[in-house]
Amino acid sequence: MENPRNVTVVCYLEKEDQLLMLYRNKKKNDVNGGKWIGVGGHVEANESPEECVVREVREETGYTLLDYRYRGILTFCYNDEPAMYLFLFTSDRFTGEQTECDEGELKWIPKAEIDQLDLWQGDRIFHKLLETRDDFFAMKMVYEGDTLVECTLDGKKVEVS
Amino acid sequence: MENPRNVTVVCYLEKEDQLLMLYRNKKKNDVNGGKWIGVGGHVEANESPEECVVREVREETGYTLLDYRYRGILTFCYNDEPAMYLFLFTSDRFTGEQTECDEGELKWIPKAEIDQLDLWQGDRIFHKLLETRDDFFAMKMVYEGDTLVECTLDGKKVEVS
Repeated sequence: MENPRNVTVVCYLEKEDQLLMLYRNKKKNDVNGGKWIGVGGHVEANESPEECVVREVREETGYTLLDYRYRGILTFCYNDEPAMYLFLFTSDRFTGEQTECDEGELKWIPKAEIDQLDLWQGDRIFHKLLETRDDFFAMKMVYEGDTLVECTLDGKKVEVS
Repeated sequence: MENPRNVTVVCYLEKEDQLLMLYRNKKKNDVNGGKWIGVGGHVEANESPEECVVREVREETGYTLLDYRYRGILTFCYNDEPAMYLFLFTSDRFTGEQTECDEGELKWIPKAEIDQLDLWQGDRIFHKLLETRDDFFAMKMVYEGDTLVECTLDGKKVEVS
């Protein structure tokens, strides 16, 4: 059975007011190339998002999640490609030794410095939400290339600059 | 662009301790045929789950949602078919006049009587969760035909009988 390409997860590990960020600099033709994102990836056949996040975090960081929180769902529309449905997780409970990641460079970044990194525009919005929202949120982001042309939060339009 | 078939929404409208249930008796070869479910359906191309639930509720019930809550994500594995990712919503704020539904018969059912209906086994589990959980939950259900052979809640195994 083919893996669905349109359902993905991303996870931000938290430790001492830092997030584990991934600088994507190892894959060719990477839509995320040169950007800092969280760890994650596509669900495999018959995998739930919560199974996927445990597997992807282990593969990409070496850490085993002891717990995680579903924080939101992102609908990510990029040019004319089919929409991606991206489950956003955070975790501050994990164990193991950090390993190297095939897809880029892992680095613990103080939360206060995240906004200075080269991020997707919409990621700046949800990083603020991760700090301020306790409930599950839903964001839709429409990109033309690197430009965020439309953004809605819980169905309501958000100004993009 | 083709609509993705693996991302769906279901919504339970609530009013005076009743839920609006849909008895699926109008479609041929309906995997839900003869069962009571909520209203909902597949996302269309580039549609977010929150846009989809507003559209599907309007199409299937005539009601316009004024608000809704994301309650959980269900990973639904049925025989050898690709997994479905099903966003579970509830709403007690909607307006308009109820219309007929093409896909079955709509009926307001007292919450206390839901469990007496012909439901998917896993639906009995999440209907209880809708009453007891305030936070977002994740359930994976594996069916062989009508039989629920495996169920996990937030990544932990649930006994199925």
